[in-house]
Amino acid sequence: MKLENRCLIQALRREPADRRPVWLMRQAGRYLPEYRELRSRAGSFLALLKTPELAAEATLQPVNRFDLDAAIQFADILTIPDAMGLGLDFRVGEGPHFRQRIARAGDVSALPVLDPERDLDYVLAAIKASKRELSGRLPLIGFAGGPWTLAAYMLEGGAGGGSFPVARAATHADPVLVDRLVSRLGVAIAAYLTAQAHAGADVLMLFESWAGLLDPPGFRRYLLDPMAEIITGIKADTLARHCPLIVFPRGAAQHLVSLAALDLDALGLDWTVPLGTARTAVGAKVALQGNLDPAALYAPEPRLRAAIRALCAEYGPGPGHIFNLGHGISPDVRPESVAVLVDEVHQH
Amino acid sequence: MKLENRCLIQALRREPADRRPVWLMRQAGRYLPEYRELRSRAGSFLALLKTPELAAEATLQPVNRFDLDAAIQFADILTIPDAMGLGLDFRVGEGPHFRQRIARAGDVSALPVLDPERDLDYVLAAIKASKRELSGRLPLIGFAGGPWTLAAYMLEGGAGGGSFPVARAATHADPVLVDRLVSRLGVAIAAYLTAQAHAGADVLMLFESWAGLLDPPGFRRYLLDPMAEIITGIKADTLARHCPLIVFPRGAAQHLVSLAALDLDALGLDWTVPLGTARTAVGAKVALQGNLDPAALYAPEPRLRAAIRALCAEYGPGPGHIFNLGHGISPDVRPESVAVLVDEVHQH
Repeated sequence: MKLENRCLIQALRREPADRRPVWLMRQAGRYLPEYRELRSRAGSFLALLKTPELAAEATLQPVNRFDLDAAIQFADILTIPDAMGLGLDFRVGEGPHFRQRIARAGDVSALPVLDPERDLDYVLAAIKASKRELSGRLPLIGFAGGPWTLAAYMLEGGAGGGSFPVARAATHADPVLVDRLVSRLGVAIAAYLTAQAHAGADVLMLFESWAGLLDPPGFRRYLLDPMAEIITGIKADTLARHCPLIVFPRGAAQHLVSLAALDLDALGLDWTVPLGTARTAVGAKVALQGNLDPAALYAPEPRLRAAIRALCAEYGPGPGHIFNLGHGISPDVRPESVAVLVDEVHQH
Repeated sequence: MKLENRCLIQALRREPADRRPVWLMRQAGRYLPEYRELRSRAGSFLALLKTPELAAEATLQPVNRFDLDAAIQFADILTIPDAMGLGLDFRVGEGPHFRQRIARAGDVSALPVLDPERDLDYVLAAIKASKRELSGRLPLIGFAGGPWTLAAYMLEGGAGGGSFPVARAATHADPVLVDRLVSRLGVAIAAYLTAQAHAGADVLMLFESWAGLLDPPGFRRYLLDPMAEIITGIKADTLARHCPLIVFPRGAAQHLVSLAALDLDALGLDWTVPLGTARTAVGAKVALQGNLDPAALYAPEPRLRAAIRALCAEYGPGPGHIFNLGHGISPDVRPESVAVLVDEVHQH
């Protein structure tokens, strides 16, 4: 189906776009009253995630309220470890938690090989439902957690208070275990993203939210090389290979050049990266997505508008900028601030 | 007093050194059984911190056990906000907490102007006691928290689970409040470090442990510019100006060039920064300290030694490298691994 709004696709191909595209990480989320109502109706986050019609409704909520240039499928980066049987749940104030963690080689070999059509059918059904609802208005982004980020959660058994001490220790104490885990995850991620493309996703995205935990040798071994294999896997599929690919590595400002050398279309930048410097370093190779500080949404309107203008000016002229936040939107942001953001971006 | 071991000072001046100096962030700490005994004897962390003879004993413990090239005064980065009356305490599993936080302009104006000789006398007395015990064997490093890091704790009222949502929101919602706070802190930090030099510290260090929370405009406004003022303050003192200065900015790989342009002697690098790239970018201007992943201390001995060799090789020939971890040592590390680290560094 031909898309009505193509500016995201144009920017990802670094072609002149109808306007500067904007969407926001976690745009379907708790800052929206209609999302809170939907989640309460679903009963729990996991029920919302796993009921395709409700997940599609969540996906559409932000694009129905704001003049955004893309929808992103409402899902979670931890769907793969959940489907592998680790027993995902979300504890209030603590983030994700697994009943089991990966501690030894046997735990990796015991992980099932995923068939996305069978084991993650609810995500694919939700994508199909979202596409039906969107009926060609906007592109739909499908996504997965990156190999290192998923491995970190699985080694830790949760988020480890954000510092992942167990996972980080494992990268040095048992590198072969971590190798096996990221390799196993890589196969699953490639199959999952490929299946999302077949279900209708127009753009694919990989979130390496915990890239910043790794030392440089670990970054290459557990993130960069496995990601190159995932991309090879996706590009082997005749349909998925045509979906533009965005990679968001949080805390990896020092590795942008290596990342941009991968066969991908855009790098998502976290809010700490100077956008102009990043464009100078890698902007001739890939599009750049980002990277307003999510906390800028707490600023009074004139200051918020000024920050957006400054960021667009810093990117400079020419195509290839997808406006976004440098991290997911915070749950207590006022929806009015998001409307201001979208309005201001479209003036540039 | 002439120092017997001058290799840290030589490396900081980028002069050829007798050997590659090594010390470890948080080297006086819980991984040492003698530290745990001392802390238990003191009754609490705060009692240990505030009793000069005990703090000096903690300072000496690692240099008596290992062949390290510097002692660092046992203290805490939060001594300044504590002396300002915010009511510091440490909760098990939660990190530091303040009874009061800085929420509005009046809270900043109500902060007392510190006189380190009066308000932080226990740190200065501990430095004098450590110097007596060291009797010229090794240089002693005195330190303070950086202006942004202290401001972040004070705005948040604690560590905010490591993500400091309140402090980050304030940088956008009330920038003038944050300006005033970092400015007030800057004056206190300059006076405190100057007083530490007068008490006998041979080297001064600033920890910006939470540099990675800021977007690029915030980094300049709340960290870089205030730090330049602090350095001007230190350099105005005829004694303190001769103490080499190390700045450790965690999560600021993208800002090393701006930081190196300050009037400082060394940059401490966190474990995520490629050391060779950093040296190429800024190594002609400053010495570099770091940056082995603290988690590498969990590796089996041959792997740990190989990681140290690789890091030294990555720095390359020539002076100006101070070996350290890229973050504080973890409490559950085996002291034997630290002995291996020190031994391996001194072979290069």
